[in-house]
Amino acid sequence: MAERTVKLAVIPGDGIGPEVVAEGLKVLSAAAPAHDLALETTEYELGAKRWHATGETLPDSVEEELRGHEAILLGAVGDPSVPSGVLERGLLLRLRFSFAHYVNLRPVRLYPGVATPLAGTVPEDIDMLVVREGTEGPYAGMGGVMRKGTPGEIATQDSVNTRFGVERVVRYAFAKAAQRPRKKLTLVHKDNVLTFAGELWQRVVREVGAEYPQVAVDYLHVDAATMFFVTQPGRFDVVVTDNLFGDILTDLGAAVAGGIGLAASGNINPENASPSMFEPVHGSAPDIAGQGVADPTATILSSALLLDHLGLPDAARRIERAVADDLQARAKDGGERSTARIGDDIARRVAEQG
Amino acid sequence: MAERTVKLAVIPGDGIGPEVVAEGLKVLSAAAPAHDLALETTEYELGAKRWHATGETLPDSVEEELRGHEAILLGAVGDPSVPSGVLERGLLLRLRFSFAHYVNLRPVRLYPGVATPLAGTVPEDIDMLVVREGTEGPYAGMGGVMRKGTPGEIATQDSVNTRFGVERVVRYAFAKAAQRPRKKLTLVHKDNVLTFAGELWQRVVREVGAEYPQVAVDYLHVDAATMFFVTQPGRFDVVVTDNLFGDILTDLGAAVAGGIGLAASGNINPENASPSMFEPVHGSAPDIAGQGVADPTATILSSALLLDHLGLPDAARRIERAVADDLQARAKDGGERSTARIGDDIARRVAEQG
Ligand SMILES: CC(C)[C@H](C(=O)O)[C@@H](O)C(=O)O
Ligand SMILES: CC(C)[C@H](C(=O)O)[C@@H](O)C(=O)O
Repeated sequence: MAERTVKLAVIPGDGIGPEVVAEGLKVLSAAAPAHDLALETTEYELGAKRWHATGETLPDSVEEELRGHEAILLGAVGDPSVPSGVLERGLLLRLRFSFAHYVNLRPVRLYPGVATPLAGTVPEDIDMLVVREGTEGPYAGMGGVMRKGTPGEIATQDSVNTRFGVERVVRYAFAKAAQRPRKKLTLVHKDNVLTFAGELWQRVVREVGAEYPQVAVDYLHVDAATMFFVTQPGRFDVVVTDNLFGDILTDLGAAVAGGIGLAASGNINPENASPSMFEPVHGSAPDIAGQGVADPTATILSSALLLDHLGLPDAARRIERAVADDLQARAKDGGERSTARIGDDIARRVAEQG
Repeated sequence: MAERTVKLAVIPGDGIGPEVVAEGLKVLSAAAPAHDLALETTEYELGAKRWHATGETLPDSVEEELRGHEAILLGAVGDPSVPSGVLERGLLLRLRFSFAHYVNLRPVRLYPGVATPLAGTVPEDIDMLVVREGTEGPYAGMGGVMRKGTPGEIATQDSVNTRFGVERVVRYAFAKAAQRPRKKLTLVHKDNVLTFAGELWQRVVREVGAEYPQVAVDYLHVDAATMFFVTQPGRFDVVVTDNLFGDILTDLGAAVAGGIGLAASGNINPENASPSMFEPVHGSAPDIAGQGVADPTATILSSALLLDHLGLPDAARRIERAVADDLQARAKDGGERSTARIGDDIARRVAEQG
């Protein structure tokens, strides 16, 4: 088989970002030979350091260069020295928006051997796929402030929901649900209060759902969904929801599925009109940066999502199996391992698979 | 001591509402004599039945009558036969808005003997007070739809945050935090994305906080807070947050503190410019209505909040002690009791206290 070269942009970022990204790349490299892949990586220094040095979050020229890649692997950006929102809006959200990452894909899955805070909960109970909208809703950045600093001050924040934007992510979610054994889709919104946006989401789910009679559709208000994530996670198969509800639910999902150290995500443009970006759900965790104690598993699982997106499901499954085996082994020996050691162990397991 | 007559408006509502309200009133009546109280209750039929019969959710005349009371006890409203949002916006939210219930007070507390879904969590770990803003934010009802039903459709939903509205609820939260042993206040928002509203909330907390040097202030993004509700609930003492984040967090809080059957709430106007309204956090649960199996404890605890608000803390504590004792007893015998039986048992314990 001819070798396929994958052009990968890498944004290590801040805090623990560079540490976990190194392990993600280690594991990707370990998986490459068996699937006749060659990785060609280009690293971009973006994040707090660059912002402090130059005031830039994402220069247009860098955005254009990123565009030339097949996918992006990102560690984490953010540092307490940078005002809240600057890097989030100027880099992370800008990439999601510019590259039309309208699917923010976040599997929530409890691996065997992993401790969940939920009593009596077993891996079979937690296996869902959250399809979070990634390009609009309350993340649109619309709104403003008037009479700032006076008693009459008003700050608004507008959620923008388009038929176009809602339909494309709902279609993706139905297609995913149709491929899964349980074939169930739960829309999460708050249509009894957010009546304008909620009605649009409900209507689109109804209309697209008519094309998927094999998929069972359910609806939950976000408050109830949050409760059921904790009391009955088994209710959920595929979840489709707006950008903000998805943000909240997937952190909760990470918590119940063994912690933020394991939660992977993909910011996906399904049509490949632009490169998709894969990143752990966790942040830059400056408090533990540089100590080699961060868990790189979330980044490693994100790199499996990356391979899936590139049409390399066998390679993706290879990494997921290695992670599953490693998590089982961790449960048995219980010893704390360094970031690099976890990456080494998973890379070895990847290579060892026939 | 001269008897004090409390004029109470009662809205039983739909589903299990009438069943749980009956027990709330039973317990209030049991508490009354020892505190020289007389209850004068007036019942209002509002909810699904009235809407079906007349199309009304809350006639102006009824709103005016409600205004003449000292407090309102509400069961739950809502029924699948009524379009989503009609009763919520037309009745519940209208009351919260018209009566300036800017404090939506929701204690999250794990009572001894109550099962939590969180492994290894004990009552000392969960004892917080969520102060949810009740009159603005994304609940303002602002927004709209254009090009409805076409591919170019847009639906917006606007969060409105005023200095006036944010400051009054933040002041209330600081005052509460200052009275509690731990004296800690956590602001929950998403200021890295909802930058306009988030900056206002942060600034107000900073400014009001300067008047409360004894209160330790913390900030968490809503996604992280959701995670910590599950993994480290002990982090929280008083939580202050916006209307929508508070809605989500308090359902999650109910889940971790033993379920929605125990979660009480008060919609409070601290200045008593209008009557405050007390209601369980749960909904009308039409699936179990009429069977006498609903847990009335949330309503009973809400009636304790009502007494607190009326300046009758001794009577409130009496009810809370009776509930605590009853929950311990439940844990021991484990038998399922009917709605009325739980009310009877708690009323008896209230009466028996010296
Ligand atoms: C950092 C922040 C902007 C981001 C989000 O809110 O989407 C993060 O929480 C996430 O979930 O990826
Ligand atoms: C019924 C609904 C409008 C309400 C809310 O969202 O506030 C409920 O969920 C609550 O928490 O009291």
